[in-house]
Amino acid sequence: MSKGDETRDSVLRVALAQSSRVGLRGITIGGLAEAMEMSKSGLFAHFGSKEGLQTAVMDYAADAFTQLVIRPALKEPRGEPRLRTLFDRWLGWGGYADYALPGGCIFISVASEYDDEPEGPVRTKVVQIERDLLDTIETIVRGGVTEGQFRESTDAAAFAHDLLAIMLGYAFSARLLHDPAAPARAQDAFDRLLDHIRS
Amino acid sequence: MSKGDETRDSVLRVALAQSSRVGLRGITIGGLAEAMEMSKSGLFAHFGSKEGLQTAVMDYAADAFTQLVIRPALKEPRGEPRLRTLFDRWLGWGGYADYALPGGCIFISVASEYDDEPEGPVRTKVVQIERDLLDTIETIVRGGVTEGQFRESTDAAAFAHDLLAIMLGYAFSARLLHDPAAPARAQDAFDRLLDHIRS
Repeated sequence: MSKGDETRDSVLRVALAQSSRVGLRGITIGGLAEAMEMSKSGLFAHFGSKEGLQTAVMDYAADAFTQLVIRPALKEPRGEPRLRTLFDRWLGWGGYADYALPGGCIFISVASEYDDEPEGPVRTKVVQIERDLLDTIETIVRGGVTEGQFRESTDAAAFAHDLLAIMLGYAFSARLLHDPAAPARAQDAFDRLLDHIRS
Repeated sequence: MSKGDETRDSVLRVALAQSSRVGLRGITIGGLAEAMEMSKSGLFAHFGSKEGLQTAVMDYAADAFTQLVIRPALKEPRGEPRLRTLFDRWLGWGGYADYALPGGCIFISVASEYDDEPEGPVRTKVVQIERDLLDTIETIVRGGVTEGQFRESTDAAAFAHDLLAIMLGYAFSARLLHDPAAPARAQDAFDRLLDHIRS
């Protein structure tokens, strides 16, 4: 990485950690400049605007999710092994969270921040990232259908949404309620979801 | 209602609507006093502190949810009819949301705001409300077991969590992604959850 890229990367790492605590709307170029001991004009040169910074933080988080969750899954054999690895890694995204996301999954908090916002570059970015994730899950499920593991009639889009719902429920139980049964419940729900489509 | 109770009720209605947009941490006694054309000291007299206001807003929201969702369900025959009404009403909580909760379900946004907060009166209140809701669902499910509608082996606590996850997924798809398939998918997931425990 060039020096400029390294700086950009460090800024985004700090901005992501801050966003996970105070929300993506809560970060400011001024606050970030102070935390990074950089000038505001230096930060503006990297991101152009607050919205530029916010969308860059979302891209940075999506890249991390791809590296830590999606890519290991895609290394597995098609169909169920891929889905299982995706699920395990996704649960473990909370472990990554301990140091990089002190306030928990950035995508869940951002969804809650932007769901009632009018259209705009940040909302569009958030929605795009979620749609890409759902598409990836659908593709993996359809791979399992092609392999003969899952029924021809499988609704891959519904599966993707149901899996997302399980993860939202998991985060809610684990992080808000501190429920020790949360991982086992998520696993059971995932196993049932798989049972439902298995041929 | 006494004049004082009426004032308190109006303040809480406005505070709830504001919270649903800017978060429970985003409301201030000053901002609310301005919106209500009341003095800050008058508001302090009602709620004592910002935390007092925040917990009162959560109680107010929980009462609304009880009236609009829980109570109609409990008027139905035990077991499945109760669960179905609960589910239908819960989906419709978004309709109530149109005027009273312009920023969507307050419980979901508050969960995301407080999940990474240390213990405190507001977090404790939020957790208590969610636990009460899960307990209510469990009790309804156990009623269905007693009636012989659901299996003896039914894990009522797991059912309650799975139902909550369906609603979180529904809110995510409907409000963030504007997915027209969201209600149908939630209904399918709920039907499968029922199939799984039916005796």
